Order: sequence, then C-alpha cells, then structure tokens
Amino acid sequence: MGYYTEMDITRFTREASSRIKDIVVEEYPLTVFVNSWELVTLLCSPVDLDFLVTGFLVSEGFIGSVQDIISMEINQKLGRADVKVMETADFVGKDRDRRTVTTSSARGSVFYNLKDADKLPVLSGGMPEVDYDTVIKLIDSFNEKCTVFRKTGGVHACAFALGEDIRVFHQDIGRHNAMDKVIGHCMQASLDFRSGLVMSSGRIASEMLLKAAKRGISVFVSRAAPTMMSVDIARKLNITLIGFAREDRFNVYHDAGRIK
Amino acid sequence: MGYYTEMDITRFTREASSRIKDIVVEEYPLTVFVNSWELVTLLCSPVDLDFLVTGFLVSEGFIGSVQDIISMEINQKLGRADVKVMETADFVGKDRDRRTVTTSSARGSVFYNLKDADKLPVLSGGMPEVDYDTVIKLIDSFNEKCTVFRKTGGVHACAFALGEDIRVFHQDIGRHNAMDKVIGHCMQASLDFRSGLVMSSGRIASEMLLKAAKRGISVFVSRAAPTMMSVDIARKLNITLIGFAREDRFNVYHDAGRIK
Repeated sequence: MGYYTEMDITRFTREASSRIKDIVVEEYPLTVFVNSWELVTLLCSPVDLDFLVTGFLVSEGFIGSVQDIISMEINQKLGRADVKVMETADFVGKDRDRRTVTTSSARGSVFYNLKDADKLPVLSGGMPEVDYDTVIKLIDSFNEKCTVFRKTGGVHACAFALGEDIRVFHQDIGRHNAMDKVIGHCMQASLDFRSGLVMSSGRIASEMLLKAAKRGISVFVSRAAPTMMSVDIARKLNITLIGFAREDRFNVYHDAGRIK
Repeated sequence: MGYYTEMDITRFTREASSRIKDIVVEEYPLTVFVNSWELVTLLCSPVDLDFLVTGFLVSEGFIGSVQDIISMEINQKLGRADVKVMETADFVGKDRDRRTVTTSSARGSVFYNLKDADKLPVLSGGMPEVDYDTVIKLIDSFNEKCTVFRKTGGVHACAFALGEDIRVFHQDIGRHNAMDKVIGHCMQASLDFRSGLVMSSGRIASEMLLKAAKRGISVFVSRAAPTMMSVDIARKLNITLIGFAREDRFNVYHDAGRIK
C-alpha cells in the first residue's frame, strides 16, 4: 500500500459515459497506543509511519525528545502503532481532554488548547536570514520533489530546509501529518530546527504555525495562503511568514527582520 | 468580522519588492459549551455560527434533533457558544474520549470512532435518482454561488440540493464546518436528507462521507477527488459517489444504481 491506488470509474460527459482507470489517493487509519493506552486514530498516507508517530507525539507534547521513546512497533497490516515512552512529566501531566478542532487538513484532535500559544516563547529575531534567491531556489526544489506524485487530488507536502538545501521532505493526504513526518524525521536526524525553515504545500492555518513555532522554527514558507490568525501569531511570536510562494515571487505577511 | 480581512503585505519579485494590499481569510475560535461542559474549540469562519453549532452537535452525536436544543447563546465577541440540551441518551451515553483524527480540512476531533461506520445502515438504493443534466446544472449553480467569494486561498463550500435546486449553501475555511453548517441549517428547516444530495468543494475523505451517511444522505458530489477509503465506504453503505465534477463532466466512483 502506498500513496495511491488504481481503480475503474465511469466518466460522464455530454456525449457519452465511458469506463476509465483513475488514480485514487489512499486513506489509512493508524491507531496509536502509548504505554498501552489508546491515544488516537490518525487518518494518513501509509508511508513513513515511524516518522509520523514520532512527530505526532512530539507535536502533541507527549514526548520531549526521541530519547523518550523506549520502543515503537508498527504493524502496518493491522494499522497499529504501539509505542512505549518514558513516564516523563510531559506524558503524565498531559491534559488529554482539552481539544481544539482545527480547520487544517489532516488534523483536528490536537491535545492542547489554543491558549498554549500564549505560553510559547517569542522566537529570537534575525536568524535564520532568508533572501529572495534562497526562497526561489527552495520553492523550485520543493516543486520538483512534488511532481514525482500526481498533484491532482493528491497529497500535501512538507519540507525542512537548511540554507538552500531541502534536507527532509515528506508527503501525506493530511498537511498536519506531512509536517509531523518532517518533525519526526528531523528529530531522529538531530537537525537544528532553529537554523532552518519549514515549507508547506497547504494553507497556513494557526495550528500549522504553532506546530512549527513549538519546535523553534522561525521561518514558514507556503505555496498557499495564511489565515489572519496565523498572521497574528507570526507577529506575536516573531515568525517570518511567507505565502503564495511561486517560481519567481512570494508574499511576505510578516517579515520579522529576517528577509534580506 | 466576516470571511475575509484586508492587510498590507510585501510582494517580492525578482525586480523589486512592493507594498500591496492582500485579502486574507479569517480564522476564528469558537468554544462550545454544552450544559456548561466545555466540549471543544472549533476554528472556523465567523459566519452562521448557529448553524455550525447545531450541525456539529448533530454530526458528533450529542443531539438527535433540533428539538433536543433547549437554548443556544452565541457570543461572537468572546467566541463562546453556550448550548443547553436535553439530557437524552445521546448526550449522556456519549463516549467523549474516543478520537479519530481526520485528514479532512476542518476537523479532527471527532467524538466517534471510525468503527462507527460499521454501525451505519446501508442506504436504500434507487433514490434519489440523478441524471447527467441535473448534476451539471447543480455544479453550475454551486460554482456561481462560490464566485461571490475569492477562490484563491479561500473558503470551502458545501450545499444541499433537492432536485435541480440548491436549497442550502454555506462556506467555511474548514470543509467539515461548511458541511456542519449545511446539516444544521437543513435540520432547522426540516429538509429531508434522504431526498437530496450534498455537494462539496473539497476532497471527499472518509469523515466527510460518514458525516453525510449518518444523516441518510445517499448521493455525494464533489469538485475534487475521493480517497480510496471513501470509495470503500460508498460501496459498503450504497452511496453514490461523484467526484471531479466540472461544468460538463464528472467521474462516478460508485454508482449505487442511482444514476440514470
């Protein structure tokens, strides 16, 4: 099972109806158990599930680092991830009831309240620096990686870049999952979030920006639009927010002093 | 506060950077209290919140009908909806802990398990009948209503139609919210779900289809693609699933004997 599968459909046009083959995206349920407690079922693309689970647990505040993970067993056939984590203060003290239902593709059940944004530190200014050429080059690389897959009715992509290089790139039917895969991968690879920038194919809504901010990522580039709440968060936390990034142009919604 | 707001941004191109005005979509947090219990915070477009709350409570199984609502007070400034409902079996017996995290735009925290799909009845076949001309006419009306708003970086739309007429139409930054607004409105107006069809601008992932199926809606038309899980659900529950609906053509992923 991968991102897509093929099926027969009927196409109706004014002239006729015909049987054709179509490529349809897979949607796969992964139930995550942490220390034998059923945490959540994620609906995702069945690829890079280890990174997804790691990133999800970090983003939701169940673990602070990959060292908190004692073991992770993923049974792809059953759709189960069994994770054993250290009984740290993060996990034990977690408010498992508080829910914010996001608008962003791929997530909803976030285990923290939007008010958590108030507890996030303002990101220090100035670094990393970004300039026009770097952004354009990264968008070009990002788009090239995306074209490996069909764009129509497809998957969302997310990347982490250091300097002019995309270091980590992941895709998923949900954009939150795609970012969690990137976060999980970066943490496994011990990449420094504060030195790089994150890129996303999808709209930048508040939850996506907070997810990045919690990791100390201070530059966010998207091919799509932000929401006004994201702009407010970017201003509050001193995040550089770039949207509608195209092959030769982009919009800056909050500069935060990092764009040369 | 409406769907959009205007702000100043900087556009960077190869030649220059310039200050321009941009239209950015609003993202608004609405915290829903049911019988004084804080249920969830929805991130949505601040329009038609009464329909949103009604539809959400129905979709999530907290109420069975609008008669279960004793009172609803929405304080738009504070972002609070206080709802008093009858202490019916639905509300009391609700499993408030089980979570499925969807990929669909706008939702996540759904208070039912994906396994609930097993408990849904197979929808009776044959009705409503749909033919090529009806679908095309409805898509045309739907698109016309959507163009009132900017499509770029915009909002999702959802509609309920009876015959060739769109009876209810709503928009939201999240497609689940848009559908809940439609559901809430249809229920307030006592429209018969079984006689009509639902339309959506966004991808048809499993949660959206289940949301419609639970109301007895048996025909789903989208401008976008379904996921394979949606197709499986459509086959199981006998739902007519139409995707990539354009001005003169559409794809049928599951016919269910309703298309003439």
